[in-house]
Amino acid sequence: MATKFASRRNIDFLINEVFDVASLNRFPYFEDHDEETFRMVIDTAMKISTDLMFPYFKDMDVQPPYWKEGKVYVHSAMVPFLEEMGQGGWIQAEKPYDIGGQQLPLTIKEIAYFLFGAANYSMNVYPMLTAGAANLIYEFGTQEMKDMYLEKMYAGKWQGTMALTEPDVGSSLGDITTIAEPTEHGYYMIKGKKIFISAGNSNVTENIVHLMLARLKDGPSGVPGISLFVVPEYRINEKGEMEYNDVACGGIEHKLGYKGSPICQLSMGEEKNCRGWLVGELGQGLAQMFKMMNEERINIGIGAVSKISGAYYAALEYAQQRKQGRKADQKDPTTPMVDLIEHADIKRMLLFQKAVMEGSLALAIQVSMYQDLMSVGEESEENGMLVDFLIPILKTYPSEMGILATSAAIQIHGGYGFCGDFPVEQYYRDIRIDPIHEGTTGIQGQDILGRKVSMNKGKAFELYISEIEKSINKAKDFPELIKPVGELERAVNLMKDLTAELLDKKAEISKETFLADSVLYLEFMSQIAIAWQWLEMMRVAINALKGPISDQDKAFYQGKVYSGRYFFDYELIKIDSLAIRLRSDDKVTVEITREYFED
Amino acid sequence: MATKFASRRNIDFLINEVFDVASLNRFPYFEDHDEETFRMVIDTAMKISTDLMFPYFKDMDVQPPYWKEGKVYVHSAMVPFLEEMGQGGWIQAEKPYDIGGQQLPLTIKEIAYFLFGAANYSMNVYPMLTAGAANLIYEFGTQEMKDMYLEKMYAGKWQGTMALTEPDVGSSLGDITTIAEPTEHGYYMIKGKKIFISAGNSNVTENIVHLMLARLKDGPSGVPGISLFVVPEYRINEKGEMEYNDVACGGIEHKLGYKGSPICQLSMGEEKNCRGWLVGELGQGLAQMFKMMNEERINIGIGAVSKISGAYYAALEYAQQRKQGRKADQKDPTTPMVDLIEHADIKRMLLFQKAVMEGSLALAIQVSMYQDLMSVGEESEENGMLVDFLIPILKTYPSEMGILATSAAIQIHGGYGFCGDFPVEQYYRDIRIDPIHEGTTGIQGQDILGRKVSMNKGKAFELYISEIEKSINKAKDFPELIKPVGELERAVNLMKDLTAELLDKKAEISKETFLADSVLYLEFMSQIAIAWQWLEMMRVAINALKGPISDQDKAFYQGKVYSGRYFFDYELIKIDSLAIRLRSDDKVTVEITREYFED
Repeated sequence: MATKFASRRNIDFLINEVFDVASLNRFPYFEDHDEETFRMVIDTAMKISTDLMFPYFKDMDVQPPYWKEGKVYVHSAMVPFLEEMGQGGWIQAEKPYDIGGQQLPLTIKEIAYFLFGAANYSMNVYPMLTAGAANLIYEFGTQEMKDMYLEKMYAGKWQGTMALTEPDVGSSLGDITTIAEPTEHGYYMIKGKKIFISAGNSNVTENIVHLMLARLKDGPSGVPGISLFVVPEYRINEKGEMEYNDVACGGIEHKLGYKGSPICQLSMGEEKNCRGWLVGELGQGLAQMFKMMNEERINIGIGAVSKISGAYYAALEYAQQRKQGRKADQKDPTTPMVDLIEHADIKRMLLFQKAVMEGSLALAIQVSMYQDLMSVGEESEENGMLVDFLIPILKTYPSEMGILATSAAIQIHGGYGFCGDFPVEQYYRDIRIDPIHEGTTGIQGQDILGRKVSMNKGKAFELYISEIEKSINKAKDFPELIKPVGELERAVNLMKDLTAELLDKKAEISKETFLADSVLYLEFMSQIAIAWQWLEMMRVAINALKGPISDQDKAFYQGKVYSGRYFFDYELIKIDSLAIRLRSDDKVTVEITREYFED
Repeated sequence: MATKFASRRNIDFLINEVFDVASLNRFPYFEDHDEETFRMVIDTAMKISTDLMFPYFKDMDVQPPYWKEGKVYVHSAMVPFLEEMGQGGWIQAEKPYDIGGQQLPLTIKEIAYFLFGAANYSMNVYPMLTAGAANLIYEFGTQEMKDMYLEKMYAGKWQGTMALTEPDVGSSLGDITTIAEPTEHGYYMIKGKKIFISAGNSNVTENIVHLMLARLKDGPSGVPGISLFVVPEYRINEKGEMEYNDVACGGIEHKLGYKGSPICQLSMGEEKNCRGWLVGELGQGLAQMFKMMNEERINIGIGAVSKISGAYYAALEYAQQRKQGRKADQKDPTTPMVDLIEHADIKRMLLFQKAVMEGSLALAIQVSMYQDLMSVGEESEENGMLVDFLIPILKTYPSEMGILATSAAIQIHGGYGFCGDFPVEQYYRDIRIDPIHEGTTGIQGQDILGRKVSMNKGKAFELYISEIEKSINKAKDFPELIKPVGELERAVNLMKDLTAELLDKKAEISKETFLADSVLYLEFMSQIAIAWQWLEMMRVAINALKGPISDQDKAFYQGKVYSGRYFFDYELIKIDSLAIRLRSDDKVTVEITREYFED
């Protein structure tokens, strides 16, 4: 079994050397923080990950939650973990002091959650969801609601969920059918079914607080009819007692991965006694949900990176210890076998994982930094646009590439990788949900090509390009970076030209045709975004290599330079083939009709 | 649950229209066969698949074999299936009449096994392995051995295995340590351990016959020391009684997929009573094994195609029935939701699966046809070279692409794809072994770049190119094919140029550097091989569309044309990016040393 799931050294590199997160303390909201407080936060997160989470990684997979008579029984390791989450203030760490937060940059919180996810993603899902649900109440709820829910949720005693999906409604959220009927008492009667509700029931929390989308009875169809409600499993009655709120859990799904976290079927109002309270304004349900969606999508992206990290360190450790064969130039069978890591093809697969993982993590921190700046009012509009623009990339790239990265971790293990005695097959299973939940890859593709590139008359796209150009200009001071600088410049020009061509065609073709290859466009854009982050990391590493540094640091920075070279030479080049397709006029996927799939 | 796992129509198309397999009856060995006998064979295979295999697809995953006190207990559905395999003569169908075979073209047998694999790959593994083991005895064994083993094995009563892998030896077979010590009785005493032995123990067969690689005691190290032995679980003593042969099964692995087929740990000679009989000549073990390896690698390739087929039809069925959202140009929420298959991005994912699957199946039949021609002495040398050349492609392309193809099947299902109620997550797990067993993708890459392209002074490669050129010339008669013909011509030229460049550099660089990107070269070569097959299929389909045909046939042929267009426009283009990398002089994966992975 692997012993390492993430690199502390890399986190310090990103926080202090690449992004200088501590510089955020120039803003009053973050003024109490500095490198030292961040170090302590990350130390604690590492300790929680190591002590309370990673030891149960496999065990929670083998002993998943089970459903019995309406209750979901989860792994007992959840108890000390949720206690720690509550006591340590991890759920609301970025919130203001006055409501018990620590005014921590979201960037640092995200890094902590990255560690949690790498150690045990299934566990991490619980506080992540509570934080998301609490955020909706915090942002849109009444004071009464905040008083009723937030303290318990922040304490880890009440679990939060996001209850969107229904048996017949997944991506097409405008079609949900759960009904909310107004009453004269101020609350609504809720009736409907939800599925795939993560942490939707649990024996280790006192209550489950569902932030639920429902449709006003006799209201307008589609999106305008949808509102957001808080629908607790137990409501507090006038006497202050917990009273069952008719939210029944009818079962959980048996699923491919992240088995430690149950996804539940819920049935509201079977006994006509399910009450929901409107959060925010009527008809604003989806809009409110989407205001929070950016953070959720960042979480999914980081969750995917965390699994790639866990799988990478398992594969690295295996490759360092397992002997097999000889190097290609040495076939004498009397010489000893070499460690797997001596083989170029193994190093190629390790570099692939490392480059995808560290590049994506850097992008996640970049986006979180934009969020932090936005939240304190620093060029909020611009930073907000950059966040919006990059979200589909951050959500999708590690999710989709993670399938191949965790697959490479299996491949390095050979037959053992296929076996449950090694952790990599689990990461491979766990990560497969990420291209699906919180907006499928298809949805993300439509988002970037259909909305983001032309949003604010193209200003977000322009801002993004200028950010890359800043990095290119900084890198130009380093002769060692001539090659990647040239390649990224070429890629940016291709991105500009291709995007302009696509947008030019837009008026002449159907929306369906325009969006048909948007998933490929998203992949094209993602390669460039990750290359941008690698150029930044290479520049910082090359600069650091000029100073007097320890051998260990030298190895670390050299590793960065090699990984960047790998990314440019093996990954970024994929944009050329993608561009050929994206420029093609053969609209085969639009033109083929369903009967041609028959035989 | 899905109802279809493979297309009978497509099989008929390949057998009769593309490859004219019946033309093999011009050779005396196949003279009793024609389209009609093939039809009956495929009918029967389809019936077996449908009745005896597919119903247990999920059940064998949920109730996998278990180990108890040295014995492996497999699913009870294995009993009627193995009986059918034996009675129907499926294990030795391609062998001569005189030993109970049917002199069936291997091509037709492979198609039958494709159906078996699509219906239930785990079940299919058992007869496939018996056939492989029996082949080794048939090819290299003494008459006494043949008399002792073949009848029982062909009857499905004795299970065969290929016992190669050891706890410390996987890809590097020259390093195996299992020892064979000669005795004066003609047999050898065997001592050692094997792992990952598929079907290595079972409660439903009377005996297990291991075809095992072992090293002669005090013999030479490396490959020359390795010989092949038949090591049965029970040997027949002088009285004709079954006697335990000290082959102990110590357990089975818990694995990611194809759970219905156990992979066993074996321990030989713990009681110093394990006898093995030499098969063929001393020191020829690996060479003999590799003579049979082509067929095994074809089997793996076809096995991967079969899983892609099962997943594809499950996804297609789901996409035809599941409603979600509206087409991109229609956002009015009062209009009804459309079936998933109406969305271009869903059709793109279906076309991807279909193009990978049908293209790979065509290549499998192409290679099997070369094998059949070789086996009857028709340009044996040339056809043998074509088989050898194409094996790494046929083994690897569907195995590696199958990860993405089955992943696409999950993606089409959305959240449901992640759940055990639908079959696609199982195909995704099942297929992950294929890039590993019978020679990893890394081994296949080294094989094609390190051996196959320069084999026989490049003659195999030249022959292969001339085969593609024949197809291109035939396609030139069709104006509808101008575009793909041009693209394939361009691809072939790129392949020639790139390969020549790589071979030119070979003398100046280390073997390690030369082979470092051989996996990418294999992917490059594979795209072109599959495009070649698609050009053939498109030509036949376009020709058929000119005649008076039924609406159903028209839909089928149009589906072929669209799938071919998809392949050329979305897949073949990947060669451009691959070529950039393969031409690069940045040897980052060779140059990076292990300490740079440390931090």
